[in-house]
Amino acid sequence: MYRRVLILAFSAVYWLACESVQVPDSGNRFVRYQSEEGVSYGLVDGDEVWEIEGDLFGSYTVTPNSFDIGDLEILAPTDPSKVIAVGLNYRSHLDMAARDLGTSDEVAQYPGLFAKYPTSIVANGADIVKPADSQNLHFEGEMVLVIGKTASNVSVEEAEDYIFGVTVGNDISERDWQAADLQWLRAKASDTFGPVGPFIVNGLDYGNLMVQTRVNGEVRQSASSADLIFDIPTIVSYVSRYVTLFPGDLIFTGTPGTTQAMEPGDIVEVEIEGVGILSNQVVQGAEH
Amino acid sequence: MYRRVLILAFSAVYWLACESVQVPDSGNRFVRYQSEEGVSYGLVDGDEVWEIEGDLFGSYTVTPNSFDIGDLEILAPTDPSKVIAVGLNYRSHLDMAARDLGTSDEVAQYPGLFAKYPTSIVANGADIVKPADSQNLHFEGEMVLVIGKTASNVSVEEAEDYIFGVTVGNDISERDWQAADLQWLRAKASDTFGPVGPFIVNGLDYGNLMVQTRVNGEVRQSASSADLIFDIPTIVSYVSRYVTLFPGDLIFTGTPGTTQAMEPGDIVEVEIEGVGILSNQVVQGAEH
Repeated sequence: MYRRVLILAFSAVYWLACESVQVPDSGNRFVRYQSEEGVSYGLVDGDEVWEIEGDLFGSYTVTPNSFDIGDLEILAPTDPSKVIAVGLNYRSHLDMAARDLGTSDEVAQYPGLFAKYPTSIVANGADIVKPADSQNLHFEGEMVLVIGKTASNVSVEEAEDYIFGVTVGNDISERDWQAADLQWLRAKASDTFGPVGPFIVNGLDYGNLMVQTRVNGEVRQSASSADLIFDIPTIVSYVSRYVTLFPGDLIFTGTPGTTQAMEPGDIVEVEIEGVGILSNQVVQGAEH
Repeated sequence: MYRRVLILAFSAVYWLACESVQVPDSGNRFVRYQSEEGVSYGLVDGDEVWEIEGDLFGSYTVTPNSFDIGDLEILAPTDPSKVIAVGLNYRSHLDMAARDLGTSDEVAQYPGLFAKYPTSIVANGADIVKPADSQNLHFEGEMVLVIGKTASNVSVEEAEDYIFGVTVGNDISERDWQAADLQWLRAKASDTFGPVGPFIVNGLDYGNLMVQTRVNGEVRQSASSADLIFDIPTIVSYVSRYVTLFPGDLIFTGTPGTTQAMEPGDIVEVEIEGVGILSNQVVQGAEH
């Protein structure tokens, strides 16, 4: 209710002054959506979405144009130039990985990184396509960082300044391919293997949020981001030593516990406390 | 000389008719460059570059505007949405990889893929930055495919239709990181670890071109693309079963023989028969 009044006040000021109005620096919920005019970001307040003008990662204003969120086609929260993921970042996941993938069951000295592609990224509600030759397709509920500023060689202390917010992600993983292939590319970066969204939320304590995964309503993963082996600032700083990050780039931070195979028809939901619920259905892919 | 006359004839027709003129379907050499008006492609004839209008991967015309190639800032040949690489694709490279990386010395049943990022890609003449903590940075001369049409789930028979042409690439690889890390990301996808260019050439027999790498003028690698374990159509078809490819996307096809560590100051050249010479210098990166 407080936020609604605040936003209405902003809108009134915008109308009266016809000048830029900034929303608060934290605690905001954003969506990216497709309308007849193109792709826009909006500020979410309950079921209402207030259209944003300008650059979400730079200077923007909230306009008085609003929509019911149910009337909008919600897109993945960014169109990233790159997607990076951290492997083996919860102690509770190490045993399973050691058994199924032959990785070490010891905590690593530095983050283990791998890649997904922009074509892996799909929105809330989109299908997860199980490739025709996939036999062992797993969910991985994760917190995903949204980069807000170009980041190259930034220190751990500076790293938070380069994070715009977080979203919910599902790091879809083909375990048989992950175990058998030279590298994890096909297992991790195939089309639709990266559902994210629907919201970006900023200004939370990203290091202390509950992450939960449910398949057909049944809880399969549940952990706090406080249990990450490498915390958020460490991840961003480490990645930026090697790879320049741009606004909108995404970093999957790792998955807790154990995961299981999904089958066509399964609905997998990932929920992060205070961020939202990402829901996607698995469908069978076409024959090659 | 024949091509020069042909291009002049095209230009004359363009002037007279003010209509679209297509260049031949094959045997052309293209560069991408920065000018005051922005980024353009050009058709290369000797030292002259004829400006192209339109979409190189769609419909375009060659204009009568020409430049001396020495006056242009030549960019990497595309700004790819994704960069894919094939590992262990020459028999002559398997023993070294088995010794240094613990990979199999047997020929694989299907291509082994890994990722580089768009931020890995740099142009001919750009610096290869050796990160401060790198101790074992190797060259890998390779033929690189330039995708011309959106490709998803295409057959081996159709695959050639989706290739626009080839360019020259250097798949820079940090061997110590490649051996030690969870995945090859930092070893292969760090900034500047993917020099490519300067030219895209189309219509060659891509499966029968000599690839040679020289460090400070000394030959270090020399092989024919006829020796690729997985040939060009097989690679494109295989990748497209999992990852949708877009025009301008790049696929590094693998490196032959053995490679060695480079040091700051070294100049590494990769040459592909009929395609061109890619030359880059290694420089020391800043401390983290």
